[in-house]
Amino acid sequence: MHIDSARRDQLQEWEKELSAQYQRICQHELNLDITRGKPSADQLHLSDKLDGILNGDYRAADGTDTRNYGGIDGLACARNLGADILQVPSEEVMAGGNSSLTMMYHAVLTGYLFGFAGNTPWREMQAPKFLCPVPGYDRHFSICEQLGIGMVNVPMTEHGPDMDVAEALVRDDQEIIGIWCVPKFSNPTGVTYSKETVDRLACLAQIANPGFRIFWDNAYAIHDLEHQVNLPSIRSATLENDTADSVLQFASTSKVTHAGAGVAFVSASAANLASLKKQMQAMTIGPDKVNQLRHSRFFAEFTMLKAHMQKHAQILKPKFECVLNQLNQAFGDSDLGEWEEPRGGYFVSFSTRPGCAAAVVKLAADAGVKLTPAGATFPYGKDPEDRNIRIAPSFPPLEELDTAMSVFVLCVKLASVRKQLESL
Amino acid sequence: MHIDSARRDQLQEWEKELSAQYQRICQHELNLDITRGKPSADQLHLSDKLDGILNGDYRAADGTDTRNYGGIDGLACARNLGADILQVPSEEVMAGGNSSLTMMYHAVLTGYLFGFAGNTPWREMQAPKFLCPVPGYDRHFSICEQLGIGMVNVPMTEHGPDMDVAEALVRDDQEIIGIWCVPKFSNPTGVTYSKETVDRLACLAQIANPGFRIFWDNAYAIHDLEHQVNLPSIRSATLENDTADSVLQFASTSKVTHAGAGVAFVSASAANLASLKKQMQAMTIGPDKVNQLRHSRFFAEFTMLKAHMQKHAQILKPKFECVLNQLNQAFGDSDLGEWEEPRGGYFVSFSTRPGCAAAVVKLAADAGVKLTPAGATFPYGKDPEDRNIRIAPSFPPLEELDTAMSVFVLCVKLASVRKQLESL
Repeated sequence: MHIDSARRDQLQEWEKELSAQYQRICQHELNLDITRGKPSADQLHLSDKLDGILNGDYRAADGTDTRNYGGIDGLACARNLGADILQVPSEEVMAGGNSSLTMMYHAVLTGYLFGFAGNTPWREMQAPKFLCPVPGYDRHFSICEQLGIGMVNVPMTEHGPDMDVAEALVRDDQEIIGIWCVPKFSNPTGVTYSKETVDRLACLAQIANPGFRIFWDNAYAIHDLEHQVNLPSIRSATLENDTADSVLQFASTSKVTHAGAGVAFVSASAANLASLKKQMQAMTIGPDKVNQLRHSRFFAEFTMLKAHMQKHAQILKPKFECVLNQLNQAFGDSDLGEWEEPRGGYFVSFSTRPGCAAAVVKLAADAGVKLTPAGATFPYGKDPEDRNIRIAPSFPPLEELDTAMSVFVLCVKLASVRKQLESL
Repeated sequence: MHIDSARRDQLQEWEKELSAQYQRICQHELNLDITRGKPSADQLHLSDKLDGILNGDYRAADGTDTRNYGGIDGLACARNLGADILQVPSEEVMAGGNSSLTMMYHAVLTGYLFGFAGNTPWREMQAPKFLCPVPGYDRHFSICEQLGIGMVNVPMTEHGPDMDVAEALVRDDQEIIGIWCVPKFSNPTGVTYSKETVDRLACLAQIANPGFRIFWDNAYAIHDLEHQVNLPSIRSATLENDTADSVLQFASTSKVTHAGAGVAFVSASAANLASLKKQMQAMTIGPDKVNQLRHSRFFAEFTMLKAHMQKHAQILKPKFECVLNQLNQAFGDSDLGEWEEPRGGYFVSFSTRPGCAAAVVKLAADAGVKLTPAGATFPYGKDPEDRNIRIAPSFPPLEELDTAMSVFVLCVKLASVRKQLESL
């Protein structure tokens, strides 16, 4: 199906056929959901041995009684786990509670209210703002929006954020004080940042406001589907460029063990950790060390964590294949959409023809298939071209996903044809 | 020992004797700690069945798979547990993470950054401030101090904060926007607020700024030592006075199960919960529901929780008796200090003669007994009369506590005599 070259009568015929198909599907009264990147029950089951793993022994290897108060840095063995995931020294890691999102929120709060490492608190600026590679992760954008921090779109390329754009923006505006990055299997495009991108990001601090910070949300650090994809080290790159204070790295076990019941990690320079801790000390006596100990025992060696992630990959791979097969079959030879083939992570990002995404999401919803709201992957929920849709294949069982994708491709076709007819 | 009526030569003789005793004790090279309200290992052991209690069944009674994301209010059964502890309807309760302190921090943040229920955010005021009943809990004061919220001392009486003072302050200053309360077994004085105090607190909102909030930290709601002490319901009192929006209640299981690895609760009106959730939604996808389920199973009935608390009381009672016996023996017939006899909670609060507390803490430290820093129970760490010392009997084994208290009473005597000699 090539829309740009189709005549009006051809488009009208397609519209009629597709509408009829759509009407038949609506009669099935489906109730399917491919909105959020939630692990499936099969994946969650992989970690069910966590509860009970302590076997009455609540003492960590270093002698800490995890049942009592204290230790704002987190348990030493949990910090080691975070260090393995992020590939950094454990002295630079704090192990926290159940959510890296919460850690990122508090990190933004630290910059906003108090400033990092002696720099001006962002709230004292006229118009502090973050660079937001788009499409990106809606929950990053919500943090900025809540605190009134402005957001400036930077287009994603297949190598990461468009660094020409990012550098020009930072050079022009000294009130740009951060950038959101999901550097490996980017949410939602699935892209892993190239060495050049990482190096150029590490140099941003040389031209930016001294309070500028890269929020490196490495949510999918170990979430490869088949072959391991190597993300160049941002830590090494900043050390080489004398900009180590410009980056804060985050990870968690939420898509490793039980979602929302795991351990989150932050890694940063000594100066940044001191700033974070200063804020945290008024807020908490320390994280849940018992749960940290459970995770440390469950993954006593990094090889055990790697083997565990392969089991996840085995469950996820057929789901990604299902989505990609449907997209290839429907749109491989068409001008109806574009997508990446991610090698890990949790999403497939689909770009419709301009001005069609909201219509696709609406059609699918009316047919009983819930998609992430169009625009959600952009700051303020505004996709300037109304093109991006994030597909999350992980949660539903394979048959349901396949049905949902059949509805999805039909809705894309129908919305695209209607849009073209309108514009003729 | 009566210092006020002692002659100089008598004081000099005492000083000599006490100094000699002190020197002997210093030679023992003690290393004891009665600083913080931490449960002892015996107490923690009471909850060791928590890990493994799920027995592979991670599904809550309402069907929720606790292993996956979602549910910002917390699990229904966990909210019921919080409702039992705080004696409020479960619809008014959110169950959260491992720390009620963290919840209080976020609640203050909500008021400060965004305002509760449509009221002016506190940060937009000239000089927002909290009333702080003193002596009080240092971690409450740290939250205000970090955010630059002023603090005004209100003396504690044996019935709670001096309400004449509190009312006059609120009437005079419309930028008083909160008060910290530990209403049952107050930290550190052990006082439980009277019905009159609770009623008058519930009426403060009638004369205060509409954004005024009572932070009701009911940390020791079920922590009675022997007979149950009834705290009048602040919820009922505010409902009667049409001020239900003026109070936020907090509790946790930190001194019930494992400290820092439990579940925290907040209870408030619908309007306040909506404000809290608005802030939280940018910060978290939801709390650790697996741990909430563990707690709900461990305390399947409120009677089980009550029986559990009696076991805590059995461990704590001899420790409180030890402290009170030592104080009674040393100071029962003296003018060297005052204290309450708490019927629950975690502390004994001791007031020295004016100007002696810091000296006592220093003497004890030099003799190897760590006490909470003098002044810690006051905003900004400043006890205007240098009198209050908080004793935390729970953590050390009984023999160690007894030794620590022997050192303590000796240090009080020595510091008091020396102070009096100086002033003659």
